[in-house]
Amino acid sequence: MDETNRQQLYDHAKKWVLEAGYHIKDRIDDPLSIDTKENPNDLVTEMDRHTEKVIAEKIATTYPDHKLLSEEGFGHDISDLAGVVWIVDPIDGTMNFVHQKRNFAISVGIFIDGVGEIGLIYNVMEDTLYNVQRGKGAFKNGEKLPNLEDRKLEEAIIGLNNFWTSENRKVDEKKMQKLVRKVRGTRSYGSAALEFAFVAEGIVDAYLTMNLAPWDIAAGVILVNEVGGITTTADGKELDMLNKSTVLTCNPSLYHQIVNEYVDLK
Amino acid sequence: MDETNRQQLYDHAKKWVLEAGYHIKDRIDDPLSIDTKENPNDLVTEMDRHTEKVIAEKIATTYPDHKLLSEEGFGHDISDLAGVVWIVDPIDGTMNFVHQKRNFAISVGIFIDGVGEIGLIYNVMEDTLYNVQRGKGAFKNGEKLPNLEDRKLEEAIIGLNNFWTSENRKVDEKKMQKLVRKVRGTRSYGSAALEFAFVAEGIVDAYLTMNLAPWDIAAGVILVNEVGGITTTADGKELDMLNKSTVLTCNPSLYHQIVNEYVDLK
Repeated sequence: MDETNRQQLYDHAKKWVLEAGYHIKDRIDDPLSIDTKENPNDLVTEMDRHTEKVIAEKIATTYPDHKLLSEEGFGHDISDLAGVVWIVDPIDGTMNFVHQKRNFAISVGIFIDGVGEIGLIYNVMEDTLYNVQRGKGAFKNGEKLPNLEDRKLEEAIIGLNNFWTSENRKVDEKKMQKLVRKVRGTRSYGSAALEFAFVAEGIVDAYLTMNLAPWDIAAGVILVNEVGGITTTADGKELDMLNKSTVLTCNPSLYHQIVNEYVDLK
Repeated sequence: MDETNRQQLYDHAKKWVLEAGYHIKDRIDDPLSIDTKENPNDLVTEMDRHTEKVIAEKIATTYPDHKLLSEEGFGHDISDLAGVVWIVDPIDGTMNFVHQKRNFAISVGIFIDGVGEIGLIYNVMEDTLYNVQRGKGAFKNGEKLPNLEDRKLEEAIIGLNNFWTSENRKVDEKKMQKLVRKVRGTRSYGSAALEFAFVAEGIVDAYLTMNLAPWDIAAGVILVNEVGGITTTADGKELDMLNKSTVLTCNPSLYHQIVNEYVDLK
């Protein structure tokens, strides 16, 4: 893809994300129709589905040869990342959307032949857009985000859900508890896309979680990468953008210490 | 205190809180001088001290017979809540202030003869003011907050730090872990004053923590009370506004279940 086409692709993605956001904002006080998926805490709303459908239709009309990997069923059945693949979460942080009517984001990552090229994370209610084009910088509302500075683990703030410090099937919670005692503080915001954005901003130094899908992380991976951060599975393996996995996204100065000393997957 | 004087007291408190907030906002990008108190994670900045000093001076000049209970040393040595007592945290969420430059608040609660009468929580960077005068309603940016609606524990979002689901000296972490598995989700934002405000707003249904000082909670207690919420120690005892304690602030429909089934203090 040449430079002009790539810029046009970015411009389209940004326009569609912002339009979808404005639509959600207009409707935020409408009564919600809420379903739960297999897990009773895995909520999905009409707004999730509508937002994804609109974006899917725009992609299909404008870029019929592009593929879509997404949460709510309007995407393609994808077995590899060949060509241009949009990876979309129409509302990341659905529990926040339902319960708080804020602190959720639209997340769009675009991969070209397996390489993350374009990322957009839009905090709808705060009207904050994080965006990245690989090699051209990461931005928050148009302001360039600097490269991540070194940080000591004792002075770090870590994004970590209580679930992973409690008995669970994925990770040794005792080692997670050691991490909690080691760091300066932990936070939990309820939107993976936003937690990635906070790592890219340097206001959270690492975000660690045990079960995320490609659409939760696609844009975030590209954003964090652009400011020098590292994203892998929690035990340090390369991410597979087609399947769910554990995830660690991290300031590079903390990465090896967290993987080697604190993460012990079951 | 008659109605006119009470209204004047509220107007002064609000004016001083907003002025202090604007000053912090102006200086947010200045280099910080940071100290740590006894606990290396208990940060204090020049900005904390300066903000408290300015508010303390205004109280002393305008209301020489009022007392001040506060974090950074400009208050009085208080052994009871007789008369008018201002309980002030100049920057609640200092770790967020230092690390994130947002998500912190100025918290001012005013007690008259032991009764919480006026509360102000100002999220400085977001420019969001929560305020309450007892019996006259709780407000967010001028909009009245409705009374809290009933909520099932399985559908609740709980504010709970990872520290209390990890081995600790204050509470049985296994029961806290049971609570984590029971609720819909947990969050942790790093500012007690803001977590109280979120409970008052109904976007978090309970906030539970094991070691807070009066200035962390004074305004929040009054705010949550006004919308029908309950605040006590974590094991259901009346709060002592002169000493540190465990704290549960809560939607009333969840209160007894959390206290009786999940909190087991050591």
